[in-house]
Amino acid sequence: MKKIQIFDSTLRDGAQGEGISYSVQDKLSIVRVLDDFGVDYIEAGNPASNPKDIEFFTRLKSVDLYHAKLCAFGSTRRKGVRVQDDSNVQSLLATETPAVSIFGKSWDLHVEKVLCATLEENLALVYDTIRFMKDAGREVIFDAEHYFDGVINNQEYALKVLKTAVEAGADCLALCDTNGGTLPHIIYEKVKQVVELFPEVNVGIHCHNDTGCAVASSIVAVNAGAVQVQGTFTGTGERCGNADLSTIIPNLQLKMGYSCVNNDLTGLSRAVRHVCDISNMRVYKARPYVGDSAFAHKGGMHIDGVTKLSSSFEHIAPETVGNVRRFLTSEVSGRTTVLKKLERVAPDLQRDTPAVTQILEKLKELENNGYQYEAADASFELMALKILGRWKEHFEPIIYRTIGEYPPPNGERSASAVVCLKVDGREETTAAMGNGPVNALDNALRKALTVFYPELSQVRLSDYKVRVLTGAEATASMVRVLIESTDGELSWNTVGVGTDVVAASWEALCDSFEYTLLRKDRKNL
Amino acid sequence: MKKIQIFDSTLRDGAQGEGISYSVQDKLSIVRVLDDFGVDYIEAGNPASNPKDIEFFTRLKSVDLYHAKLCAFGSTRRKGVRVQDDSNVQSLLATETPAVSIFGKSWDLHVEKVLCATLEENLALVYDTIRFMKDAGREVIFDAEHYFDGVINNQEYALKVLKTAVEAGADCLALCDTNGGTLPHIIYEKVKQVVELFPEVNVGIHCHNDTGCAVASSIVAVNAGAVQVQGTFTGTGERCGNADLSTIIPNLQLKMGYSCVNNDLTGLSRAVRHVCDISNMRVYKARPYVGDSAFAHKGGMHIDGVTKLSSSFEHIAPETVGNVRRFLTSEVSGRTTVLKKLERVAPDLQRDTPAVTQILEKLKELENNGYQYEAADASFELMALKILGRWKEHFEPIIYRTIGEYPPPNGERSASAVVCLKVDGREETTAAMGNGPVNALDNALRKALTVFYPELSQVRLSDYKVRVLTGAEATASMVRVLIESTDGELSWNTVGVGTDVVAASWEALCDSFEYTLLRKDRKNL
Repeated sequence: MKKIQIFDSTLRDGAQGEGISYSVQDKLSIVRVLDDFGVDYIEAGNPASNPKDIEFFTRLKSVDLYHAKLCAFGSTRRKGVRVQDDSNVQSLLATETPAVSIFGKSWDLHVEKVLCATLEENLALVYDTIRFMKDAGREVIFDAEHYFDGVINNQEYALKVLKTAVEAGADCLALCDTNGGTLPHIIYEKVKQVVELFPEVNVGIHCHNDTGCAVASSIVAVNAGAVQVQGTFTGTGERCGNADLSTIIPNLQLKMGYSCVNNDLTGLSRAVRHVCDISNMRVYKARPYVGDSAFAHKGGMHIDGVTKLSSSFEHIAPETVGNVRRFLTSEVSGRTTVLKKLERVAPDLQRDTPAVTQILEKLKELENNGYQYEAADASFELMALKILGRWKEHFEPIIYRTIGEYPPPNGERSASAVVCLKVDGREETTAAMGNGPVNALDNALRKALTVFYPELSQVRLSDYKVRVLTGAEATASMVRVLIESTDGELSWNTVGVGTDVVAASWEALCDSFEYTLLRKDRKNL
Repeated sequence: MKKIQIFDSTLRDGAQGEGISYSVQDKLSIVRVLDDFGVDYIEAGNPASNPKDIEFFTRLKSVDLYHAKLCAFGSTRRKGVRVQDDSNVQSLLATETPAVSIFGKSWDLHVEKVLCATLEENLALVYDTIRFMKDAGREVIFDAEHYFDGVINNQEYALKVLKTAVEAGADCLALCDTNGGTLPHIIYEKVKQVVELFPEVNVGIHCHNDTGCAVASSIVAVNAGAVQVQGTFTGTGERCGNADLSTIIPNLQLKMGYSCVNNDLTGLSRAVRHVCDISNMRVYKARPYVGDSAFAHKGGMHIDGVTKLSSSFEHIAPETVGNVRRFLTSEVSGRTTVLKKLERVAPDLQRDTPAVTQILEKLKELENNGYQYEAADASFELMALKILGRWKEHFEPIIYRTIGEYPPPNGERSASAVVCLKVDGREETTAAMGNGPVNALDNALRKALTVFYPELSQVRLSDYKVRVLTGAEATASMVRVLIESTDGELSWNTVGVGTDVVAASWEALCDSFEYTLLRKDRKNL
């Protein structure tokens, strides 16, 4: 199987997507996910553009990667500055990454109108910068910015820029459709020309999605002989985004017989969700291969067909990419889902057990009210066991009061909470402070509960998410709170909904502690 | 210019997308928008599948369309039933639409395993149904379901199905990639074969987006000779959606020299937003041509380039499709963005004005702390004007206290807030209740301010968003609050950040009211 190099730019071009803003810690986490998944290059940032990237590259020096090569991104030297004196080139060198991507102009219009240089001057910028980085021992990927617009407008010049890059020692010519406007049949033809003219170097492709064709253009470029595909794992990037690697990789590896990553792709969906979580992005439901709807069947005929023969309405098996098949809205499929979800805790349930219908109806009612159990298995289990009469609350919440204060009376701790609850007829009232009412409530609830259940002191929250469900009522909108808790070994998710973010959080917090106690009881049986 | 027929299935295949559910009134409104925009065919529903569609087709009979032909969708007759006795065929006839699309099997596997019929029987189903509809005077589009899987698995049989459809009188052979798994180069080859074998009929293409290639596959099919493109205006449909017509139309009409609709495309963005509004969907920001980010520039170099020459980073002029150019403010943007954003309120600023550097530095520092100004222009303007010394607060917040209570002491209003602020040395303390502490604070702040500025009573919040920035600290995490406010005419956005969601909301609320007052002062100058 022919190997295709996967070059991920989530942290560089991807960070230029609207709404994306990474902390240094976010970036380190993403590097880890991408390396684990098995991409070849991680373009980690542009050290010349902002101070966060400089700190990030410094911290990266102590990170060991399994497989991926780190790559820093920067421009050709400035006009009129010696390459060794150019501060951007120097900051690129200081990153100490094994590979660098140097972008330079290949469209004559850009050279003259944007860079305001002569065509000859630009060739010198390209040559000097690549040569300097090669002399410093780096692997150099030359990003030919606007290559396709360039070669259409002035073929002779665009090819001369590539020739200059090759002469300077570039290891790879990455042809960039920077404006994203080129259609796949043009991409194919122009990549083929470069592959034939420069057999001594690797050719890469870098597409944007402005015509909705970035994935297709990337794969036709591979058909034309490109051996490196640049894109982002999240699909984000300037304007309409970069080519989505999470779609390109399965297309190439599962359908076209190329090898992109060493592993199989069963970790794909998880890895994409992980990177999107860190990026504070939703995985777009209809996203090919990895979205929640990618293997969701709604039409009655489709569901019937898939039930008879899964390949009848699925182009690949969902588990190949770590995704799952879902049946939407149909009551029959609903039952299957409920039984699947409860098979561990209530293996005796059958399709026709009356309680299954009750659970299904309750589920529909709650989801209609804004609850969502896909990401809150623990709350779902509690709800179902309650209907089955197999769960009794371990504590009864009586009241809470939260007080928020500005300016904060006690440093960062701007809020306090009072909680009163009852266990086996014994009442406990206590209070705690926190960074805001939700945090104060979390602290007070834990404090009250550990009087009765000391083991709860090991439970801590590992994630907290808030989603506004209906924007129209603004601060009186419905919100959904999703909480992830852990005892250090296992983790579980709970949900709460309401117009009051504190009340919704309280609901999810109570579910989380109840679930911990339920699991403990089960273990002691 | 060669004409390509645009066949929209938003109301049929599009309604099979997850989360889509149309009322009869919704469907009537969408028909109107699509007709105004100029599509050729509107596939309006499947009368056999649900009673809502029957009512809808009845109401459609009294609707006059300018250009579009209505089309009803249905299956070939049932096995063992005479075509004139088949209730589905009868309900299709009863719609009285000028065109019908009849879907039938062309993949031998489906015939045998899903339909459970012999290959010969299936040919009779196809022939009889098309012939019957032709005899009834309808234009017939034959949807060859799973055509590409079929022709790869058993070419002889798939072509025999098409031949049967042509002999029965079909006006168009629409080749469907029903599972969405076929890649563009295969689509091209197989469409070309059909175009060459059946020159007497139109050939259409119907793609799904499971490999992220539906747009590209549709346009390569046109390159191969297809003259009808089927898809949905919203891009939705089973699983990953149908081919997105809102991307295909500009690709064909603006870049490939075909004519799709009579009009120019300046109404495209508005029409897509309108259909999405009715569908209760957001227009995906990064959506090609029509999304909010499609012509949004974030990287400093991009912004600098576009300012010098718009074509340098834009593949088409945004106004061609009724969209607009935007510059995003962020740490990766530079001086040009800051000047652009402030050109209306501080036109005297120059690239080298020292304050511009200060604003840029402050921006980077604040974004490093979790602020984000892309979606908070009003907060950005306040911050910049403060650095320039051109803005003085209209009120001084002194304290607030919020109290949250469970169970809610007063129905839904689970919280109350006390606010104290000062204007020109006069102090005002007041209180209000609300559905949670943020809503109570919003109400109390507005109440206190309208004592001094009665015009603020017209301002209301139109959107409220919360993002948890770092999950690791759970309920003590940093959150970012984004608020959209409106006075009924204009709307503006503000941001607040903190570990306390109430405090972060307070910050964004104060900015929103300050901005209103600033705009009022400016108007009165």
